[in-house]
Amino acid sequence: MSAIEQLTAELAKLPGIGRKTATRLTFHLLKQPRGAVESLARAIRTMVDRIAPCSTCGNFSETDPCSICSDSRRDSGILCVVEEASDIAAIERSDEYRGRYHVLGGHLSPLDGIGPEDLRIDDLRRRVENGSGLREVIVATNPSMEGEVTATYLRGVLAPLGLRVTRIARGLPVGGDLEYADRSTIAHALTARREMKG
Amino acid sequence: MSAIEQLTAELAKLPGIGRKTATRLTFHLLKQPRGAVESLARAIRTMVDRIAPCSTCGNFSETDPCSICSDSRRDSGILCVVEEASDIAAIERSDEYRGRYHVLGGHLSPLDGIGPEDLRIDDLRRRVENGSGLREVIVATNPSMEGEVTATYLRGVLAPLGLRVTRIARGLPVGGDLEYADRSTIAHALTARREMKG
Repeated sequence: MSAIEQLTAELAKLPGIGRKTATRLTFHLLKQPRGAVESLARAIRTMVDRIAPCSTCGNFSETDPCSICSDSRRDSGILCVVEEASDIAAIERSDEYRGRYHVLGGHLSPLDGIGPEDLRIDDLRRRVENGSGLREVIVATNPSMEGEVTATYLRGVLAPLGLRVTRIARGLPVGGDLEYADRSTIAHALTARREMKG
Repeated sequence: MSAIEQLTAELAKLPGIGRKTATRLTFHLLKQPRGAVESLARAIRTMVDRIAPCSTCGNFSETDPCSICSDSRRDSGILCVVEEASDIAAIERSDEYRGRYHVLGGHLSPLDGIGPEDLRIDDLRRRVENGSGLREVIVATNPSMEGEVTATYLRGVLAPLGLRVTRIARGLPVGGDLEYADRSTIAHALTARREMKG
């Protein structure tokens, strides 16, 4: 296999990148100055070398514990449970949350053979049991079928521990269009409607 | 900038990859086994180290001249002119062409300040003048506005040299749908219609 075919094959393994896009990317890289391409390769290596999951929350981080877990200005009384570490980045971008996180590492999916023991649910239970001052767990799994199943399961695990268990709201996305929203989103948007304040 | 942000920034420089996709790819790579990610970085480095343009045709290659220019079984009597080296790969996949190639390195675009001297047109003229036994040049620039302008310009350069200058056919793409084709494609498809053989 030639160097071009090899890189194309490697790129085609990435999610959402088919054979055609992989070929296009490879030829794009071929036309770049050598330095630019080397800096991409270097960024990949650096990331592999430096980043590991935080042993507390599961977030990807260059330090352990991660910068969120070790930030004393953040609220330790509230824990946001997400499926993937990438969800943390998304929530952080919203600038709306100042508590801690817990990464499950996926969602329950019996059809794919993914049960509670495959997710970091025992870790979560231990964190909640040992976490003094913890008032609330926000379940922020995705609003998908599997995310809902996982959320329901987590509620069953956490509710007996005597703290508030909440679920992120479902509704119309900001900038979305009612006309193109699916009916269950609209149903949720109606059910979860809130008083307008003057 | 963290290692994650660095890689995301590098990936976002790639064509067709925005900030969101770059973030998704970075987090995908974070979840892969270390070996898989290293092999991507290695494939990029190997490509940079091994691939250079063929000094004859401009194709990207691990050897100089490239495997097409040095293949004595290919027809030296016919030369296919393309905009980019990636177009060679596309034409080769069609298994329909057994001649040689010439890469222009782009198309004429006066608005972007790209004139004939910025493309490998002088090289092409020299190849045609020195190429004993050359019977035909197929102009396979893209069927875009700039590709057509470039094709017309090349015809002016090559026609006086006394060999056949042809242009790839425009028409409906295979698997395409008449209903969704734009009108100039349909016009070309009608003008270039051919006798059906029984």
